Amino acid sequence: MSSTEKGEMRDGVELSNFCPRFHRAIELVGRRWTGAIIRILLSGPKRFNEIAASVPGLSDRLLTERLRELECQGVLRRTVDTGSPIRVAYELTEAGTELDATIRALSSWAERWVEIPPETAERGA
Amino acid sequence: MSSTEKGEMRDGVELSNFCPRFHRAIELVGRRWTGAIIRILLSGPKRFNEIAASVPGLSDRLLTERLRELECQGVLRRTVDTGSPIRVAYELTEAGTELDATIRALSSWAERWVEIPPETAERGA
Repeated sequence: MSSTEKGEMRDGVELSNFCPRFHRAIELVGRRWTGAIIRILLSGPKRFNEIAASVPGLSDRLLTERLRELECQGVLRRTVDTGSPIRVAYELTEAGTELDATIRALSSWAERWVEIPPETAERGA
Repeated sequence: MSSTEKGEMRDGVELSNFCPRFHRAIELVGRRWTGAIIRILLSGPKRFNEIAASVPGLSDRLLTERLRELECQGVLRRTVDTGSPIRVAYELTEAGTELDATIRALSSWAERWVEIPPETAERGA
């Protein structure tokens, strides 16, 4: 009885109680465009223009803002290659890379459950 | 070469290309409070007041709105037990239940990477 009062335990994660850490995490990755940016960076470091070109509808201003937030939160880092020309890239930190399991789980869920209008599907293909 | 052009494949999920389905999914579960509501419902059906009591800071108005959105998206259903008194509960559909893997992955990530101020941690304990 006391275990159900405190919430159901399974796989070491207790779900039925509100968890401030989870709440922060979902608010971080759930911000508009943030999930798409992390998802693209999981395939490797990218330059600003590569990310911008990969996410239709994302403005440069918002991309800059999101990249700064993610850098602040320790999810990605900005690297500067001081060759000529100077090249700035964005890559996931260890924390960012470990979002892999979450992003893949949600990608699989979306494949199975999210329907999109045909014209959007064609653009995405 | 052509496989990297199309994006990195692993575990059957291609990540480097923008995916409209994933984008919709993260916008759905990432809306303010939605993740917390789904997380609580993963432990079983709950009545409105139980959900409201479980999520500190969530107003009745916003909870109503989020429950309607999730019902509309096929993630949860409203069940009415016509006994006396009538009892309304909210439970996850098959689609909602399958968000389990995503919510658990992000919960584990949050345990490992999200720091919260001590006073919030005590409230959540």
